[in-house]
Amino acid sequence: MVDQLIEAIIKTQNPSVAGIDTSLSYLPEEVQKGVKTFEDAGRAIFEFNKELIDSLYDVVPAVKVQVAYYEMYGEWGMIAFRKTCEYAREKGLIVIADCKRNDIGSTASCYAKAYLGQTEVGENTLSAFPADFLTVNGYLGEDGIKPFVNEKKGIYVLVKTSNPSSGELQDLKLENGKTVYEQMGEFVEKWGSDSIGKYGYSDVGAVVGATYKEQAQKLRAQMPHTFFLVPGYGAQGGKAEDLVVCFDKKGFGAIVNSSRGIICAYKKEKYSALGIGGAARQAAIDMKEDILNALKTCGVDKIGG
Amino acid sequence: MVDQLIEAIIKTQNPSVAGIDTSLSYLPEEVQKGVKTFEDAGRAIFEFNKELIDSLYDVVPAVKVQVAYYEMYGEWGMIAFRKTCEYAREKGLIVIADCKRNDIGSTASCYAKAYLGQTEVGENTLSAFPADFLTVNGYLGEDGIKPFVNEKKGIYVLVKTSNPSSGELQDLKLENGKTVYEQMGEFVEKWGSDSIGKYGYSDVGAVVGATYKEQAQKLRAQMPHTFFLVPGYGAQGGKAEDLVVCFDKKGFGAIVNSSRGIICAYKKEKYSALGIGGAARQAAIDMKEDILNALKTCGVDKIGG
Repeated sequence: MVDQLIEAIIKTQNPSVAGIDTSLSYLPEEVQKGVKTFEDAGRAIFEFNKELIDSLYDVVPAVKVQVAYYEMYGEWGMIAFRKTCEYAREKGLIVIADCKRNDIGSTASCYAKAYLGQTEVGENTLSAFPADFLTVNGYLGEDGIKPFVNEKKGIYVLVKTSNPSSGELQDLKLENGKTVYEQMGEFVEKWGSDSIGKYGYSDVGAVVGATYKEQAQKLRAQMPHTFFLVPGYGAQGGKAEDLVVCFDKKGFGAIVNSSRGIICAYKKEKYSALGIGGAARQAAIDMKEDILNALKTCGVDKIGG
Repeated sequence: MVDQLIEAIIKTQNPSVAGIDTSLSYLPEEVQKGVKTFEDAGRAIFEFNKELIDSLYDVVPAVKVQVAYYEMYGEWGMIAFRKTCEYAREKGLIVIADCKRNDIGSTASCYAKAYLGQTEVGENTLSAFPADFLTVNGYLGEDGIKPFVNEKKGIYVLVKTSNPSSGELQDLKLENGKTVYEQMGEFVEKWGSDSIGKYGYSDVGAVVGATYKEQAQKLRAQMPHTFFLVPGYGAQGGKAEDLVVCFDKKGFGAIVNSSRGIICAYKKEKYSALGIGGAARQAAIDMKEDILNALKTCGVDKIGG
């Protein structure tokens, strides 16, 4: 699956992903006014997402859909989540389900079926929430990760997260000299060792926050076969000139997420004349240019060389 | 919320919880035969759960509902999950949503609303998947935990999990002399320090596997204010005589989960004459007796003294 992602990045010359993390409060006020139930909310959110995807599908290689923003609207939110994933894939986009799932093996198998595989129902096998990649949390070790890997799609394991308190546990030093996040990075390299594709990266990626440049740089060196999903650009404070350390010399190795910066762009004066979709598209193009310019200063003129 | 749980444990004299982790494959074969879609599956699973809850509500203080088993049936599974939580609460049971959610603060807030709080929808606020406790993963540190704590219900943070590979990360020693799980335990005590109730326990609990006696014993001593949710009894190999180390001298301090051992009891010869509900009830009673007997050998004659 990582090969397909890299090819989509080469095609669009865009190593960024639009985070479709749609809260009802991100929608235009006149739309919000008509919403009284979870059913209304789910429908309105999906319509909003559809407009975003229609404007973004040829600019970005992938979308990341954060499930928490859908779960809070109950089953109607989950319908909007499923339809958003399905619609994005219909439009040729790669879908990253950002669910940070984790559990013991037997339970992780259920999550793996839900997002990456299929569920047996009588004589049928059906997809619940079809995605190409899933974010997962590795605190439980290998037997909580294997069921996801076995689906032969892709995952991103939390290694160094972008939030202010990520260091409380992740930055602690182990007796073996590594930090907890470096140790997790080492596990991730190992878990991906059987799925290295033609560009040298495996289907087992890592979440590495754009907000921690120094740590990201270390991890890039230590995890040569691991593709990074990089949150924290924009609203969380991560800057293009910092996150270029996540890339290799060909401009591979990372995909950078922006959510509110893209999907709420229509609320900014700069983009407001363009409407919801037009604003998102222009914000995504501006983000792409920002990252490509930063890559150029590191000697990467074109992704893929 | 922990006070309510403890009072329910005193009332039932039962420190165990029934795990309603219902896969379609756990249902009687004749029921499975009629199931062709996710909608069929969701309906059949809820009917099965209803029978379980009707037979269990006066025997156990709480149920734990593992969401992965529902997510794999799409939105129809989530409807069954919601209805199971609602029905159990109607019957007076405390509901632990076992979702192991985790994310950065803004996203964790969405999960917190979904399971422990309410979501704003226009002028209304509505419950998505109403539960009393939620399991969470603390890898992201305090700002990923606070939104859950702020809901003023209860959480269980993964500390030492029951699965075979839990030690890969959790048992590693830090430079400060603690293991990763002990460090997490220390965080949990701190996160709960503002919500200690009348029995001396806080609303921030810990998941501590029944399969690791030595580690559980250490944690019980180190975490005097933390109530333990103990998975791993039965199918995973945890025994009553081992897990008594999770309890204090009054028989408080822990609640032990069994899932397959209870909900699939009707498939065992020993219980098969009793039907689905009757078998679950008898298995739950047998589990209760098993744990109470083990507690007696430690000098606890009655929970609550």
